[in-house]
This record gives sequence, structure tokens and C-alpha cells, in this order.
Amino acid sequence: MSIQPSVAERLTLVRGSMQHADIQAFIVPHEDEHLGEYTAPTDERLAWLTGFTGSAGVAVILADKAALFVDGRYTVQARQQVSEEQFSVLHLLQDPLSDWLIQQLPANSRVGIDARLHSLDWYRKHEQNLSAAQISLHPLAQNPIDQHWSDRPEPVESPARLFADEIAGESSAAKRQRLAAQLRAQSADALLLSQNESINWLLNIRGTDIPALPVVNAFAVLYSNATLDLFIKPSRLDSQFSSHVGNDVSVYPAGKLNDVLQRLGEDALTVWLDSANTNAACALQLQQYGARLLDQVDPCLLAKACKNTTEIAGMTEAHRKDAIAMCQFLAWLDHARAEGLQSDEAQLAEKLESYRLQQPGYLEPSFATISALGPNAALPHYNFRNAPPRAFGQDGIYLVDSGGHYAEGTTDITRTVQVGEVSDEVRQLFTLVMKGHIALSRAQFPKGTCGMQLDVLARIALWQHGFNYDHGTGHGVGHVLSVHEGPQRISPKGSTTPLEPGMVISNEPGYYREGAFGMRCENLVVVETATHSGEIDRYAFRNLTMVPFDKRLLLVEQLSEEEKQWWNDYHREVFLMLATSLQGNELLWLEQATAAI
Amino acid sequence: MSIQPSVAERLTLVRGSMQHADIQAFIVPHEDEHLGEYTAPTDERLAWLTGFTGSAGVAVILADKAALFVDGRYTVQARQQVSEEQFSVLHLLQDPLSDWLIQQLPANSRVGIDARLHSLDWYRKHEQNLSAAQISLHPLAQNPIDQHWSDRPEPVESPARLFADEIAGESSAAKRQRLAAQLRAQSADALLLSQNESINWLLNIRGTDIPALPVVNAFAVLYSNATLDLFIKPSRLDSQFSSHVGNDVSVYPAGKLNDVLQRLGEDALTVWLDSANTNAACALQLQQYGARLLDQVDPCLLAKACKNTTEIAGMTEAHRKDAIAMCQFLAWLDHARAEGLQSDEAQLAEKLESYRLQQPGYLEPSFATISALGPNAALPHYNFRNAPPRAFGQDGIYLVDSGGHYAEGTTDITRTVQVGEVSDEVRQLFTLVMKGHIALSRAQFPKGTCGMQLDVLARIALWQHGFNYDHGTGHGVGHVLSVHEGPQRISPKGSTTPLEPGMVISNEPGYYREGAFGMRCENLVVVETATHSGEIDRYAFRNLTMVPFDKRLLLVEQLSEEEKQWWNDYHREVFLMLATSLQGNELLWLEQATAAI
Repeated sequence: MSIQPSVAERLTLVRGSMQHADIQAFIVPHEDEHLGEYTAPTDERLAWLTGFTGSAGVAVILADKAALFVDGRYTVQARQQVSEEQFSVLHLLQDPLSDWLIQQLPANSRVGIDARLHSLDWYRKHEQNLSAAQISLHPLAQNPIDQHWSDRPEPVESPARLFADEIAGESSAAKRQRLAAQLRAQSADALLLSQNESINWLLNIRGTDIPALPVVNAFAVLYSNATLDLFIKPSRLDSQFSSHVGNDVSVYPAGKLNDVLQRLGEDALTVWLDSANTNAACALQLQQYGARLLDQVDPCLLAKACKNTTEIAGMTEAHRKDAIAMCQFLAWLDHARAEGLQSDEAQLAEKLESYRLQQPGYLEPSFATISALGPNAALPHYNFRNAPPRAFGQDGIYLVDSGGHYAEGTTDITRTVQVGEVSDEVRQLFTLVMKGHIALSRAQFPKGTCGMQLDVLARIALWQHGFNYDHGTGHGVGHVLSVHEGPQRISPKGSTTPLEPGMVISNEPGYYREGAFGMRCENLVVVETATHSGEIDRYAFRNLTMVPFDKRLLLVEQLSEEEKQWWNDYHREVFLMLATSLQGNELLWLEQATAAI
Repeated sequence: MSIQPSVAERLTLVRGSMQHADIQAFIVPHEDEHLGEYTAPTDERLAWLTGFTGSAGVAVILADKAALFVDGRYTVQARQQVSEEQFSVLHLLQDPLSDWLIQQLPANSRVGIDARLHSLDWYRKHEQNLSAAQISLHPLAQNPIDQHWSDRPEPVESPARLFADEIAGESSAAKRQRLAAQLRAQSADALLLSQNESINWLLNIRGTDIPALPVVNAFAVLYSNATLDLFIKPSRLDSQFSSHVGNDVSVYPAGKLNDVLQRLGEDALTVWLDSANTNAACALQLQQYGARLLDQVDPCLLAKACKNTTEIAGMTEAHRKDAIAMCQFLAWLDHARAEGLQSDEAQLAEKLESYRLQQPGYLEPSFATISALGPNAALPHYNFRNAPPRAFGQDGIYLVDSGGHYAEGTTDITRTVQVGEVSDEVRQLFTLVMKGHIALSRAQFPKGTCGMQLDVLARIALWQHGFNYDHGTGHGVGHVLSVHEGPQRISPKGSTTPLEPGMVISNEPGYYREGAFGMRCENLVVVETATHSGEIDRYAFRNLTMVPFDKRLLLVEQLSEEEKQWWNDYHREVFLMLATSLQGNELLWLEQATAAI
């Protein structure tokens, strides 16, 4: 077994390369070259360098100091995982990275980056900020970390699984035709795609290259005549691939991407790319070769967000299976508490996973389960893997936020349940959170309404009592793709994409009291055309998630008649859907958990 | 009495000037050179040319045809007021003006404008759009309409009334210091002000140049050392002016503005201007003379929107007086209905005005009263002056939207009241509108919340039943200035300015059924710090308007306990404020109108 260098030694190695490359700073983001939220172990450069394992963050190495920038979710974890001697932990928004660099570096300094790991947006913004202080950004030919990471895991190159049209609901050829029409309407000759989610959706393929994100890593260029160049090791595709996608898809090894970018440029073509999610290396190359860039949002985002009826049927079925597993787990949990069984956050998460594993078609968790007791639940992104898990028996409520990828769909659910003595204040807060959940769930709204308009429905009950939660109310969810997807979301800021039929989105208000407890009530819902009377066409949400909320935490007398009606209707629907799939004590549990209030 | 030319003759005259100036089109907007919503009769060029008297619109004259562009509020009125032979009536948003010009004109055409009557934003956008079709915009030295408008009303040059610090709450000198600090923070040398509202607010002066907008017309340049150049006929200022504003204000005749713009340019100064409300003529001159333009929102807007405690006290007092007049009118209205008196929309508006005129300090209406019976109320901007007013006796409900400028503040109120037989459906809709009004009125919200987030509270009850209204929910209101002011508003789109303490804003959901009836329930509210318990600091609205809503239109059983509580609290407050100011039948009316439900 080889001895791996310590963080101090890694810093020394990287600084050596920096000196060699004549750069005074080097920036290490969490992202890989596809710029998605989830990355494979082989791309966890930030964790290798710093020890920090959060899902977002960026380190900056100078000759004599270093800093790790993280957002509010990760300040605590970053301080636990990195040494203050080696890294200052700074806030990603309060201490913008370029301001900090300008403070630290003299004029004419050179800042090295691996341009594959930054979006074109990021590159342009930081280049502009730094240039005001005569500091320049230098894309490096080789990433110093890749030079020194001796025990780097091999990339997973899973076979591309053909995602049948019967599950996708639309052939890849039809999707390409739809998008190609958009290219022509924008006078674009080609569309550069670098996000795995878009490419895997467009080609109706999936994979296992990245934990929790069921994709194969790839790049692609779609042309305005609906043909497509796919960049992936050809041996990862089986013999059926060509008939699956149609013969207007050409496959090249990943290394050939540059040749195609060069050709696009030399032909002076107009190339549509989304500067927010296209890596700067590709974009700068295109530009250097002479292409005209059309910077617009990736058209796959909206197309993939608006799910077709087959995808929605699959999501519904995945949620039915997931509900069975969740109910089995929650029934077991009540039983375990009643019996005084010992358990901790890690064992609880494992138990839940064991039920999901019994469901046919279950693939993997759609994200790392958040299993949190007592004060740990006050951290919305708590990870029990980072410290000894907390044991059962000390706390009143337990929060579990989890989900799964199934053959036909993806789930994401949070339940907060009673596991001990609970104060009236906790019940009061739970009731306010549920009022918000119900108000959003019941909402009907005209075409054109965006998440920023609806967000208040989930918050106003809390606000009236002087409480709030410091995260968004809803995120889009992919179909056997990322559990977090845009462009729609429900939040107080920036969520201005109108909600459209077929969009799947979470409804997850919460409340967190530092050092004490946390709660969140999350269902996934799908936007549908409302069938009610009146003058205006409008949309409504249908619940995909079908699992009881914990009525033991509810102050029933504080609900309005309409809220009680929603509660009883929802739980009756849950009972009817699941009753035939549960037996014995689990069925008894379902009966009592869904009984009318 | 001179015979005035017909619209056809006016078009011929203008076309003659167009030919002389070698332009193939001429654009005539409604705005004057200050670009406010309200204009004086001397500036009603659009009405002179077309006959259309709406408050927004733009005409385009070509050699052989002409078009009038109006928004949805004014399509009906425009079709009534202009001849189809002379003008096509087009929709301002659906048929963008530059697209239409491009369709009509060949390449190399020249489009004439009076650059004083367009914002710099408008100019840039249209210049860019037209240049794509090789059509150019030409600012004319003289407006052809001004050449031919022989009976043009003289401009009103009212004396500048000094608005005492005891009413303004902050001296002009203090306001200029505050703004000058903002100029320095932005490295701006000067701020060009062309909106009357900003200038009159900044100098604590008022006037009567424009109906409904109590200002003097002026231009101003504020410098980063807090000195100011004011451009206005010096004889309009009295001997106290200098001591009122402080001696760092220099007064020049309006014609000297160009000299100052030239000096700013020749000194290569950085001049802050708001391209959305600065006329293109001034901005282009500045640029030609060599000034560097800093295009940012007029800093007076936010400063003037956040009213100080003196202004809020004045607004409160103005609303008390206005409430007395409104209650007297509503009491008379009920009496008149009971007695079977004859009246029509015009006479009702006149009656209401007669009560306002009895209030001490009443200045003038803050906008043209909307007095609408039955189907006329379905037009949110109905104007009974444009056709024979509708008579009493045929309709179930009456809508009156009106307001006044008083010495100490400005009001704006809409009440919808029963004046005949009313169906349950009308009551149902009124109840839904009131539910929206109440939900917004009760809202508490954290700092940073904007109107776009809150708008849904006023609509969700209607949406749930399949109804909506096609206008914003709330607009800012000035302090003895324009009854419509920004930057805050409450609407589904674009209202992203956070609500701050001291902002006055309307709460006016409604419902309109074409050809049948219309209803709107409008109070003005002020944003204040909420005093309730809880963890987060938050704001709430306090009602300024203190006039009963019509409980005869309410389905009380459909209100929640909280909504009933709001209704009873509000009406008790109304009663307590007004009881000592009303006598006899008016007091009896108040008692029954404010009795608990």
C-alpha cells in the first residue's frame, strides 16, 4: 500500500507546479468538465487537495497561503474538514473570489486555471474583474493536480444503457428534430452540448459513470439538420445503439471534440452554446477557431423539464414503489421506537435503503440520504457520514430526505416524524410548515406564472408568525437524471421561468432551529392543466409523492376547513394507492397513518 | 373665432412639413419633454393630431397612411375617437412600432422624431431595430406639429409654491446632501434630472402646471458637491425661494440648459442619468459635447418613495379628510338610491368632488375620477367624459375610483358599492376580490421581499375559482406628487424592487366581466416595521385609506375567521377615526356601514 501525501505535501507539490508554470495563484473548483452538480470520484480534485467533500466550493492556492470558498450550507463542514493553518475558509458570496485575489496579489500577477472546469460565464466575469487590477487569467495546458494525484481513481466508463422509447416517451430522432427546428429559428448552425443531463436525455441513453447521476459522460454537437456528433469512447456503445438513435448520429472518441470545434470555427459557423454551463476551454477554442458564438440558454433544459405523458406515467409509478418502501420504513421506525430498539442516523438510512432495494427496478439513491436526528436536522444539508452518527432516543423529531432512481423515474421525499417527546412549539412550527406545503400544493395559477410568484404561498404562514427558512421552496427533478434540474424553480429570487405542464418540481418548506431541531415537508408534484370551472385556463399541481405526513406533529385545530380537506383527501389517496401493496403490521400502520383528522 | 383644421387637414399640414424635411415618417408620442405620465394641454400633441385623448399612445404618420398604437386599456377608446380612414389602430405591444415601420418603409428611409419627447432608452432601442432594415431615426430641429398648431394653449407657468419643511419632513439641502453622497459613491460629477416629480421633490416645491400633477415644469442638474442648477423661468420663483432651498441653488432660464450640458461635456464630466426617463435630446447633446454618461436609475425615485415620518403623518391626515368626504358621498349615494333620485356617472363624480372640496387643504383630484355603472366598470380605465354618461337605476353595482391632492398628502381609493339588484355570482366574485385584498393587507414579510412575490396573495382566491384581473395589484403613490410612482409595485411581472418602510402603495385587486360589470377594492397602505413576535424582523402594511367596504356585497359565510377578524378590526378602526367628524344621517350611515359582520 502506497503512502499518500498529506494535504500539506499536496499543497507543496501543487505550488511547485505553479512556480514552474509562472503563475502566482491556481484555482481549484469542485466541478468537472461537464459542470454538473454531481461529479465522479476521479474528478474530486477539490477533495483531494483540501479534504473538503461538499458538493460546491472552490479553493485558491497562492505561494504562501490558500483559501477555500464555500456557501452557507457548507461553512461548518468546511471548518471541520480543512485545517485553518492551510486554508482560510471564506464565504463564496460575501467574499467574492476575485476581490480576494485582487487584495492578495500585486498587479501583473498571473492566475492559473483549468479552463475545462469553469463555465464561460465564470471565465468572462473573473477575467473582467481581475483585469481591472492588471491581473490575468491563464488557462493551463495541464492541471497541476492531475500531475500529482498518484492514486487517482480510474474514471468509470460504464456502458451506455439504451433508454427505451417506451420509457422515454419520445425517440431521440424526434427530440433532435424538435431542437434542430429551434436552431434554424435562431439561425444557428450547431449547438454545443457539454452537460451530461442534456446529452443523455437527447440520445435516450443512461449510465453509471457518476454516483446518483445515472448518465454516461459525453460531449455532443447537434446540427441544424438534426444530425449529431457524439464524443464518447465508441466501445461504450453496444450494437443496438445505432438503431436506437437513428443513423444520423456519428460517434467519435472524446479526443476528437477539438477537431470538430476547429472545423466549426474554420467554417465560420454560428454555434449556439449556453455560457452558464459550457466549459470555458471548449468555448474559447471555438472562438479562437473563428466560430460565431450564440450565447443562449441550452434548449434541452426546457424540453427536458416539460415531461411527456410517458415520462409522467413513469414518475408516477416510481413514486408508487418509493411510497411502499417509505411506508415500510416509517412503519418499522414507529415499531422500533415502541420497542426501544437501538439505532442511529446511519443505520436508519441503511434500513430505508434496504426497503428501496426490495422494489423492482430500483437503481440507486438519487442523492446521498439526509438522515438527521434532533439538532443535526437544523442543517438542511446535514451529512451523517462526516462525523459519528447521532443515536436514537435523545430527540423528539427525525428528518429523512432521500430519493431513488428507478427504471422508470426518480423520487425525492422528505418526511419529518415524531420519535420522542415533542413540545407544543415544535407542533406549532410543524403546523405552519404544513400550512405552507398545503397552500402551495392546492394552488391553481394561470399560464405564465413563475415560481417566484408562488413561493410566498409556502412561506406566508411562517412569516405571519415571524419564522422563515433559508432555502428555496422547490427545485425541478429530472426523469432518471439529476434530482436537481432547471430551468424552473420555486424560490424568492430569480425563478422567473413560467411553470408549464409536465414540469416536476418539489414542494419543500421547512423550519430550522440551530442546535435544537429541524423539519421539512417535501413532496414532488407535477404541473397539470386544472380541470375546474371558471373563466381562465389554469394549471395545478398533482402530487407524485404518496406517503403520509406525521399527524402526531399536527395541531389539527389550527387548520382551516380547506386545509383539513386537503389533508384528508391526500391521505385517502395515499391509502387507496398503497393498501393492496402492504400487509400485516405495515397495512395497519398505513391505516392509522392515513386516517382522517 | 378661428376655424380650426380637421384631423384630415392637420395630417396634410404635417405631411407637408415631413416632405420639406425629407422624412418618410414622423412619430408623435403622448409624452412631453419631462416624460411623466401626466401632460399639460399645451403638450397634448397626440390629441391635436389624432383626436385620441388617452394617457398613453403613439402615432406614426407616413406619406400615405398613419397608425395609432395604444395599449389594451385604450383600444376601445381609440377606435371611438379616431377615424379608421385616417389611422389604423394597432396594439402597442403586439405590433411593435419599429416592426411596423420596417414593414411599411423601404430601406434608406428617414424617420423623423422630436427627440425631446422620447426617452434615451426608447431612442436607442428603436434606432437599433430600424438600423437592421437600413432605416434611420432623425431628430428634427422643429416639431412639425408645433409649426401648425395655431390655437395651441399657452403653457401654464404657475408660481413655484414653497413646500414647507414641516410638510416635506426634510429640507431640500439635506436631500441634496444625501443624493450628492450617492453621486460621489458612483464617481459621478453630476446628475441630470428631467422628471418633474424628482425635481419638485428634491427642491420641496410644487405648482399647478399640469392637471392632477402638482408640479412646476423644470429641469435640473445636481452636482456631486450638492449644489444644483435649476432651469425654470426665474420670475416663477418668489423672494423666499433662495432661503427655502439654500443658496447653493442657481436658477437659470429654461433655455440655458443647453449651455450647461455643453459645459458638462466640454469638461468631460461623468453625468449620471436615467435613460428610462431622460429625454433623448438632452442625453444625445451631452454625449455629443463629450460627457461620459453613467446610465443608472434616477436616485430620487427610491429616496422619494421611502417617505419620512412627516410625510407619512401628512398622508395619514389627508386620508382622514378624504375618508370623511368619501363617507359623506357614500351615505348620500345610499340615500339617493333609496329615494329614487335621478343621477348619472358624471353627476355622481361631481357630487363626490363637492364633498372633497369642503375639506380644508383640498387642492385638486389626483387623477380623473373613474365613475362607472354596470358594464362601464368592466373597463378598468373607463372615462365617462368620452360618451354620454350612464344613468342610475339600471345596474346592480357602481365603481368609483378617485383621489385627491391635499396640502399634506395624496389619496387614491376605489370602492364598489351596491346600487341595485345584485346576483349571488356578483357577491361571490366580490367576496373573492375581498379575500385577495385582505390576504395582501394582512401580509407580513421579511426585508428584501418585492411586490412580485406578494402579488399572488391578492389573486390566489380568484385563481382557485378560475378568475383573474388583467392589471397590476399595486402602484406606488407620491406625496403631493404623481399618484403613480415607482420604483416599487405589486404585480406579476418585473416588480423586483424590495418593499421598504415608508413606501406607500395601493392594494387593488378587482374583477371585470366585459359587457356586464366590474369591481375593484382599493386601499392605500404604507409599509411599516411589524411589531409582532417571532424570530425574523419583518414588515407589514398599515392601511391609510379609512372608508368602509360594502358588506351588502359580501358572502360573510365564505370568510375565514382571520378574514372576518380583519374586516371587523378594519371597520372598527374606520368608525373610531371618523365618528367625531360626521353627524346625523351620515353618522348613522357610518355606524351601520362599519358594524361588525
